[in-house]
Amino acid sequence: MSERISRRKLFGMGAAGVAVAGAGVIAVRGIGDEPAPTTVASVSDAVPFYGEHQAGIVTPAQDRLHFVSFDVITEKKAELAELLQEWTAAAARMTQGQEAGAFGAVGGEPEAPPDDTGEALGLPASGLTLTVGFGGSLFDDRFGLASRRPAALADLPHLPGDALLPEISGGDLCVQACAHDPQVAVHAIRNLARIGFGRVSVRWSQLGFGRTSSTSRAQATPRNLMGFKDGTANLKLEDVALLKEQLWVGSGDGPDWMTGGSYLVTRKIRMLVETWDRAPLVEQEQIFGRDKGEGAPLGKKNEFDPIDFEAKGPDGKPLIFDDAHVRLAHPSHNGGAHLLRRGYNYVDGSDGLGRLDAGLFFMAYQRDPHRQFVTVQRSLAGKDSLNEYIKHVSSALFACPPGVRDAGDYWGRALFS
Amino acid sequence: MSERISRRKLFGMGAAGVAVAGAGVIAVRGIGDEPAPTTVASVSDAVPFYGEHQAGIVTPAQDRLHFVSFDVITEKKAELAELLQEWTAAAARMTQGQEAGAFGAVGGEPEAPPDDTGEALGLPASGLTLTVGFGGSLFDDRFGLASRRPAALADLPHLPGDALLPEISGGDLCVQACAHDPQVAVHAIRNLARIGFGRVSVRWSQLGFGRTSSTSRAQATPRNLMGFKDGTANLKLEDVALLKEQLWVGSGDGPDWMTGGSYLVTRKIRMLVETWDRAPLVEQEQIFGRDKGEGAPLGKKNEFDPIDFEAKGPDGKPLIFDDAHVRLAHPSHNGGAHLLRRGYNYVDGSDGLGRLDAGLFFMAYQRDPHRQFVTVQRSLAGKDSLNEYIKHVSSALFACPPGVRDAGDYWGRALFS
Repeated sequence: MSERISRRKLFGMGAAGVAVAGAGVIAVRGIGDEPAPTTVASVSDAVPFYGEHQAGIVTPAQDRLHFVSFDVITEKKAELAELLQEWTAAAARMTQGQEAGAFGAVGGEPEAPPDDTGEALGLPASGLTLTVGFGGSLFDDRFGLASRRPAALADLPHLPGDALLPEISGGDLCVQACAHDPQVAVHAIRNLARIGFGRVSVRWSQLGFGRTSSTSRAQATPRNLMGFKDGTANLKLEDVALLKEQLWVGSGDGPDWMTGGSYLVTRKIRMLVETWDRAPLVEQEQIFGRDKGEGAPLGKKNEFDPIDFEAKGPDGKPLIFDDAHVRLAHPSHNGGAHLLRRGYNYVDGSDGLGRLDAGLFFMAYQRDPHRQFVTVQRSLAGKDSLNEYIKHVSSALFACPPGVRDAGDYWGRALFS
Repeated sequence: MSERISRRKLFGMGAAGVAVAGAGVIAVRGIGDEPAPTTVASVSDAVPFYGEHQAGIVTPAQDRLHFVSFDVITEKKAELAELLQEWTAAAARMTQGQEAGAFGAVGGEPEAPPDDTGEALGLPASGLTLTVGFGGSLFDDRFGLASRRPAALADLPHLPGDALLPEISGGDLCVQACAHDPQVAVHAIRNLARIGFGRVSVRWSQLGFGRTSSTSRAQATPRNLMGFKDGTANLKLEDVALLKEQLWVGSGDGPDWMTGGSYLVTRKIRMLVETWDRAPLVEQEQIFGRDKGEGAPLGKKNEFDPIDFEAKGPDGKPLIFDDAHVRLAHPSHNGGAHLLRRGYNYVDGSDGLGRLDAGLFFMAYQRDPHRQFVTVQRSLAGKDSLNEYIKHVSSALFACPPGVRDAGDYWGRALFS
């Protein structure tokens, strides 16, 4: 029967070859009929778990997402706090490439279930980050937390064009798992759900790929499923002053337990890709206000050229239309509101009507969602010529507390103690 | 507005650094707060499209899957043959890292929709393979093909424990897209669906990750979502004699148009992971007949040690139980039937009942599904102690024709001409 065996140990044993370039990880992929060795990496393929802020916010966006929203089913505050402690301990391990708990039977008892589900054995940490948030519903009368609900966590208003499905919206708790390998992200969420058995129940979850926004200037801007570069003007980790102003909750902003945290808005935005694919290129570019190949603002050459909202074409009309996405979403149009977007493309199979069920799982972090996301979304939802091709089908808002400082701390300790 | 721009050109321009080791591809991933440069690769990150057999069968299994089943909605055979020619041309391009058609407006007309949807611009070929198959329903009375239906393509019988949903089963045509990057696989399927507009309609589709079976001895054996290594005893591309006997359709096997092809069975196998995760480790290992950490047959040390089905424990009972998966699935138990499995893990979010909707999208290629898959599945479905934890929810069978020989050939030409 199994001995206890760690991911790190297995990994070291199973590696078909290891090569490390600087702080990076080298994955050698096979081509044609050449065999493809398994991706290998050094143990340093891990993002630090402890810190002032939670990882997974300004961490350079990893390629894969598994996001889950939970309903809390225990009514005991102490059990909830205990769960958050257990989750924190498991997350501290998994983000470093270890199992969720001892692999093999718990306490060495072969009759007990394993304390890790095993599907990530042999895989490196893969840049895994786990980020936790608290939904407004957690502050109802179940846990005596009502007085500690931040004003910024007030429910989002109904926005024009919303077609939200309640069963995939909201939730008491969320966990965002991002990693380079979907198997590692899925493993993490599944083990947190397993640990939460009897105390939380999965409300909805979402897988994503191909991060749609870079969060560092060193990352190339990826493309969304409309084929356009997405996130050119995103807040990035290098924007230190702007992050302080726009991303992180300050000490005077509300209840102390959120200082150093950030608010996360998620929106599942279904794209009518079949309709979009039949729109002329020129129309697609006018809708975004950028060209499709390079991503440059219309009238400019390069992706990062400054946008000239005043420029006019030979016909005297603005090159960037009044209802172009890039104009309506721009901070200058929204009282200076920036967002740190961290969304992912999704394809959830097909919809039974002959169409792919695909789009953008939008995620944005910010200091105050009512001043930032709501302002931008009102601006877009009222006028954006993209609206013909998209539908917002889910929405959620979570207060993501500050980082876990050390092994004695846990997610939300300042809220629960 | 956009100039025409190719993926290869963009790719060459956008690469943050290129390094090639042998025939492989090097992806440098960032860690911690280090920026993560976009994955870069040489143009040789492409699997040859033309050949005796279709790529994507013995090709070393890539990490990501987008599988789609189509209903044909035209009733004209000539339109269907034309579609297969258009698909073949687009596939020959996309598998080599090019756009599906000219990027930019079709024929240079800015008023026309682009002939490529754009979301893979700048991405390398990523090992993309596209593999096409024909379902039994294509041989009904619509296209005059009834007399050319191979006996091996007879509908699969009802098997014990089947809980199949017709809306995600069957289909007239299938395309399997496998790649190292899900965005590339999704792009390929989406563009084939776009090209097929008015002629085919998406019936169902499935995304998958973390290939669950290695198809080459150079690949490490990956793990399924039960946490066990999967595919240790799989047919592999190095097994040349066995492939001829068990995988490829021979010239006397049935209608000539399938010579050099293979039959694909797909089964979506939902795993009740929450129940599984509460089963004791010792029970999990008895169910599989292997240990979880190493994947060795019970009673042996290493994954590839030969299985001893006669070995008994100190209590005189077989070490590998009579109903262990590894015993029931073994060729020696099934008249020598082997399969080339090529399945993927899937997580389709959650099921609305607090559980992850997760499992295995099983795919197996073989020379004769009735002699091979049906035999093995009857053996498993009747006795396998795994059945308590799994449910087969979809099933399909496709005849995958031989490879496209050159640019004058197309998928299924011998069937349609």
